[in-house]
Amino acid sequence: MPNTMEIKLNHIKNLRFEGYSSSNPDYKIILDTSKEVGGNDEGIKPTELLLIGLAGCSSMDIISILSKKKQIIESYDVIVKGQRASSHPMVFTKINIIYNFKGVNIDEDAIKRAISLSKDKYCSVWAMLQKAADIEYSYNIV
Amino acid sequence: MPNTMEIKLNHIKNLRFEGYSSSNPDYKIILDTSKEVGGNDEGIKPTELLLIGLAGCSSMDIISILSKKKQIIESYDVIVKGQRASSHPMVFTKINIIYNFKGVNIDEDAIKRAISLSKDKYCSVWAMLQKAADIEYSYNIV
Repeated sequence: MPNTMEIKLNHIKNLRFEGYSSSNPDYKIILDTSKEVGGNDEGIKPTELLLIGLAGCSSMDIISILSKKKQIIESYDVIVKGQRASSHPMVFTKINIIYNFKGVNIDEDAIKRAISLSKDKYCSVWAMLQKAADIEYSYNIV
Repeated sequence: MPNTMEIKLNHIKNLRFEGYSSSNPDYKIILDTSKEVGGNDEGIKPTELLLIGLAGCSSMDIISILSKKKQIIESYDVIVKGQRASSHPMVFTKINIIYNFKGVNIDEDAIKRAISLSKDKYCSVWAMLQKAADIEYSYNIV
């Protein structure tokens, strides 16, 4: 099937699972959850993966676009916070993204444009999650 | 803030990032993408994380519920396929989940009920992604 992604998850023990994608089966992700709900806190939580996916999707767009615009980014990180509903299924109701750029003579308009292009055009995770949660963002340039 | 999850992603090089959650900062996830788009294929793709998150969220529900129902599951895995739109932002249009259970005297009704409870009540990732894509599932018991 064209344009198809495939992943597999194997149960290891308790609430620990190992997941990998068919595109790179050598790289495994450990999923686990907190001890209060029967896990051992030895991996990442499934819901956290959505926030990491959002951060990664958007960051790949932004770093690619800024590279094409000849912006020199010395360091970059992004923090994503997700506020969850208090009752099941405890979806994210609000997601907040903070982009942090460090570099020399970074053009703020290039940053703004790169984030907008990711948000409005390229980032599939953003496009999907915004149907479920309000997504806000801000950025810092130092 | 109550009920808040937080993750951070650091840029490493090219389109490689390392992500972790505030709940377990010792466990890092490597994000990367395919060589055709500037990556090195050394980690997981952001969009694949949504499918792994869905598989993990639902699997934790199901394994927990089946354990409470005294079902003995010798092995369990789940495969998730996501079909993507052909144009940007290339969201998932259709997601297919296949649950595979292996055990002794597994009660099929318990399996059906566990999957339904995850789908309709507990799984936050399912609740969010179904707003963006059609999600179908099936199961095998051996």
